[in-house]
Amino acid sequence: MNCSLARALDVVGEWWSLLVVREVYFGRRSFTEMRETLGIARNILSDRLAALVAGGVLERRAAGSDRRRTEYHLTAKGRDLVPVLVMLMRWGDRWEDDGNGPPIVLTDRDTGADVEPAVVDAATGREIDAGSLRVRPGPGFRSDAWPEPGAGER
Amino acid sequence: MNCSLARALDVVGEWWSLLVVREVYFGRRSFTEMRETLGIARNILSDRLAALVAGGVLERRAAGSDRRRTEYHLTAKGRDLVPVLVMLMRWGDRWEDDGNGPPIVLTDRDTGADVEPAVVDAATGREIDAGSLRVRPGPGFRSDAWPEPGAGER
Repeated sequence: MNCSLARALDVVGEWWSLLVVREVYFGRRSFTEMRETLGIARNILSDRLAALVAGGVLERRAAGSDRRRTEYHLTAKGRDLVPVLVMLMRWGDRWEDDGNGPPIVLTDRDTGADVEPAVVDAATGREIDAGSLRVRPGPGFRSDAWPEPGAGER
Repeated sequence: MNCSLARALDVVGEWWSLLVVREVYFGRRSFTEMRETLGIARNILSDRLAALVAGGVLERRAAGSDRRRTEYHLTAKGRDLVPVLVMLMRWGDRWEDDGNGPPIVLTDRDTGADVEPAVVDAATGREIDAGSLRVRPGPGFRSDAWPEPGAGER
């Protein structure tokens, strides 16, 4: 697929996959812990873990204390998913609130202050939203169907 | 589910849904256009569109010229997904490159300059990555299983 979004979704575009990444990020590293927290069927969790390892998002390591026990860790590629994951979590906080407010608040590891994630242009620091973007073909572009974001809806 | 990520994925956590949002954002608003660009089966596209409308991400409008023709538009909730979508696209650019570089480059609608999206803390402007976060229970929290992000892996 000539679209990095489609390629990304091919690795993580499925309900359970990002929740498994969340679990590993939150330090629940064993099959048993994830199965209990997610309430997911054994075969589905097993499939998702295998796909995330094959996709380079997770890696298996023997647990230090017991070499027969496997732990899952985020790779660099998996850690790079975390900003996407927190943006999607905040979207859920805003638009799927059950009336009680956010279940989880993000804080800064150094200062302890609450963190409010936002997507900005790294060059200018300006916040990015649906109205602020256009697109142009990149070096990997291979199609005539040229898209025009949000035409007329700024 | 007591997690905004899970709730968010319940609306958009499926391969085709975010690609449909991409199509509408890129101005391909009719069933026919989307079906052609995505190469998706008629019944799957129909299901995905209905779910995105039910989830409040898309809305149906009669096309101006032909009242029998329906167009899909992003709601405010749908437009708020765009920053998540571009972050996932850039993740795909970085980690699922086919060797040719990014198919699509984002540009600033006002200046035309290339845009490099990054997730920062809105208060400090500091970039957020897997190592910079902790979490605390928010008002909507309802569980004893307290997570600890990336323990020991900074």
